[in-house]
Amino acid sequence: MYKAKIFVNYKQSVLDPKAEVIKHTLHRLGQDNVQDVTVGKYFEVLLEGAHDAVAAQVDTLCDQMLANVNMESYRFTLEEVSQ
Amino acid sequence: MYKAKIFVNYKQSVLDPKAEVIKHTLHRLGQDNVQDVTVGKYFEVLLEGAHDAVAAQVDTLCDQMLANVNMESYRFTLEEVSQ
Repeated sequence: MYKAKIFVNYKQSVLDPKAEVIKHTLHRLGQDNVQDVTVGKYFEVLLEGAHDAVAAQVDTLCDQMLANVNMESYRFTLEEVSQ
Repeated sequence: MYKAKIFVNYKQSVLDPKAEVIKHTLHRLGQDNVQDVTVGKYFEVLLEGAHDAVAAQVDTLCDQMLANVNMESYRFTLEEVSQ
């Protein structure tokens, strides 16, 4: 059994409105030591199967469902977990 | 300078509709090896300051802005990064 930890973020070239709002709000609250903020999605998916098959499956899952590949990029790690 | 990596997830007791939709969709697509799905938010915040002060600041930031503590729980790590 594997736990896929999936991170989906906006590509560098895409303006992230939520992140900009958080950063400006913090600066207005006087927290000027905040240099940068990024916002993304985080998924954990538990799957049975062999490592390579699961890796291929998760990659397809990210590419076709969890990330909008026009604007977002994704990365994931696989962790073996006991049943 | 520190990079805070912040994870915000629904509490165990809260039904996560997005996760349920993803899981059922995958099962309908024949991916029955998917056992569980969780969906959350992921933030990275870059801050200047001393470790303890930054940790306290990030905790307050999570508690008051990034997480709805009635339904969500949060955890974060701090990583020292070069300027």
